[in-house]
Amino acid sequence: AILAETGTLPLNVKFFFEGQEEIGSPDLGPFITENLEKLQADMIFSADGGQWDTETPQLVLGLKGLTSLEITVTGAKSDLHSGMHGGGVANPGLALAHLLASMKTPDGHITIDGFYDEVVELTAEDREAIARVPWDEEAYLAQTGAPATHGEPGFSTRENLWARPTFEVNGLTCGWQGAGTKTVLPSVASAKITCRLVANQSPEKVFEMIAAHVDAHCPPGVTAEVSRNPGRADPFLVPAGHNATAIAGQVLEEVYGKAPHQTRAGGSIPVMSTLLDQLGLHAVMFAFGHEDENQHAPNEFFRLPTFRLGQTAYARLMERLGS
Amino acid sequence: AILAETGTLPLNVKFFFEGQEEIGSPDLGPFITENLEKLQADMIFSADGGQWDTETPQLVLGLKGLTSLEITVTGAKSDLHSGMHGGGVANPGLALAHLLASMKTPDGHITIDGFYDEVVELTAEDREAIARVPWDEEAYLAQTGAPATHGEPGFSTRENLWARPTFEVNGLTCGWQGAGTKTVLPSVASAKITCRLVANQSPEKVFEMIAAHVDAHCPPGVTAEVSRNPGRADPFLVPAGHNATAIAGQVLEEVYGKAPHQTRAGGSIPVMSTLLDQLGLHAVMFAFGHEDENQHAPNEFFRLPTFRLGQTAYARLMERLGS
Repeated sequence: AILAETGTLPLNVKFFFEGQEEIGSPDLGPFITENLEKLQADMIFSADGGQWDTETPQLVLGLKGLTSLEITVTGAKSDLHSGMHGGGVANPGLALAHLLASMKTPDGHITIDGFYDEVVELTAEDREAIARVPWDEEAYLAQTGAPATHGEPGFSTRENLWARPTFEVNGLTCGWQGAGTKTVLPSVASAKITCRLVANQSPEKVFEMIAAHVDAHCPPGVTAEVSRNPGRADPFLVPAGHNATAIAGQVLEEVYGKAPHQTRAGGSIPVMSTLLDQLGLHAVMFAFGHEDENQHAPNEFFRLPTFRLGQTAYARLMERLGS
Repeated sequence: AILAETGTLPLNVKFFFEGQEEIGSPDLGPFITENLEKLQADMIFSADGGQWDTETPQLVLGLKGLTSLEITVTGAKSDLHSGMHGGGVANPGLALAHLLASMKTPDGHITIDGFYDEVVELTAEDREAIARVPWDEEAYLAQTGAPATHGEPGFSTRENLWARPTFEVNGLTCGWQGAGTKTVLPSVASAKITCRLVANQSPEKVFEMIAAHVDAHCPPGVTAEVSRNPGRADPFLVPAGHNATAIAGQVLEEVYGKAPHQTRAGGSIPVMSTLLDQLGLHAVMFAFGHEDENQHAPNEFFRLPTFRLGQTAYARLMERLGS
């Protein structure tokens, strides 16, 4: 539209299409490395993401990282008769319970030495921005079916969901899992764990902290091993006062007639960290999808009015950046 | 042999054959109830059990009871994305770990209110009798492959194996158990538990104590339920100075030329409790099997010399009882 009206663009534009996200983007990093010169830019805007709702824009300022691991506790060399050996050798299922309980309090504070050390704490402004985003606790509980919300003490649920790191048991495996009773004293118990990380936590350092914790807190009578599982991502956080984000916010406010919600997400988008690492730029998610559009599912769709809205917004963004 | 030599027996003998043990003896209790008059006796001797080894007799003075249950912890109504909901709702796997950790210390003391209240404590004589039975810690560790023995503090391993109650995790089930990572926040976590009980603990009362503990200690953000699993047995303990046991011990000492080890077992033989309940008699296990005889397995066998030894022992027992 700008080209048609003026015959020129007010700035240089480079398009970058990423087609491998769903298979883990194996060629993305090497491609950027090989084309560092060509890809140099002042700002990056990404079309991945979405608006808050049809009436409300959002700026996603943070994404969580990830570290993934497994803890395996071993007692005897094979499962044993619980009558013949109960009281003689340790129970790995119980030892694993003690280990896990030592890593996070019942009310949600993670107690692994150093875990929070590199967390960028929320500023008063960050917390105000998060508090401005509507939150309906009843609706959240109805959606999840949980009896209550639950997260790190001292933070709102939304702060925990968006801006605080987590320690989650993804799975437990030990002994007899079929129907009824088996009076077995298991030989092995294991837990799959993932932590969602926030800036500036390192997936590798957090893994090492957990491994050190397990070494230091292994209960008597068993051995414990920690191994990494596939899956790691760096956290991503747009710094306060970031130039491209400020401009994107102004444009969104013009287009929608109201200021964007400043949000974060609990998931990971690895390309954001890759671009930051290699090009030194925090990409801005300038995007217009809706949550109900069946992403990755049958009957995926995109609203025609959203095409027009996005077109307007990108045109205004270019005009603003060019002026 | 006695009949052939003397034409009569020095006492009345009633034989009682139990053929249902391996299917849980469904008709045993009702049969005894219906035949209470006919089954009246002064003493009961049972051929179930075995000698300590070829040279050494034993008297089994105690058997453990059993209670069996399952703890189920529920958070959200279905498994959730750990990035979208981690920090928002509680993790049942971790809540279960806290619950289990609250029931038994890492070093093996059970912390359920009232759990030990009805335990018949070991007397100094009991402990001396147990200490007289040979114990080879190195051999036990080699047999089990455990890095160390582990049981209730304040008791020897043999005391724990034979005469102290246990709390064992038989199985844990939660979330993702396949290979690699699944970033799921599970909805449910469950633990199968059995406790081996000693006199005078009641399987029903211990179950109620555990249920009350779970109610009182359920971590925030989840619900917890406790249900009984199949399998229960009363503990069995021969009282000190028991007449039939004393006589059996004297006969065994004559036959072997040495006093029997006074032992207990961690397993259960429900008929012993049934006979005690209905006939008011502590049966004496007067038996001659060896541990290596492939019980319930292919090539099960019984040594011919053991037949002759048992014959002699039972004949002497009858003579002694008749005199």
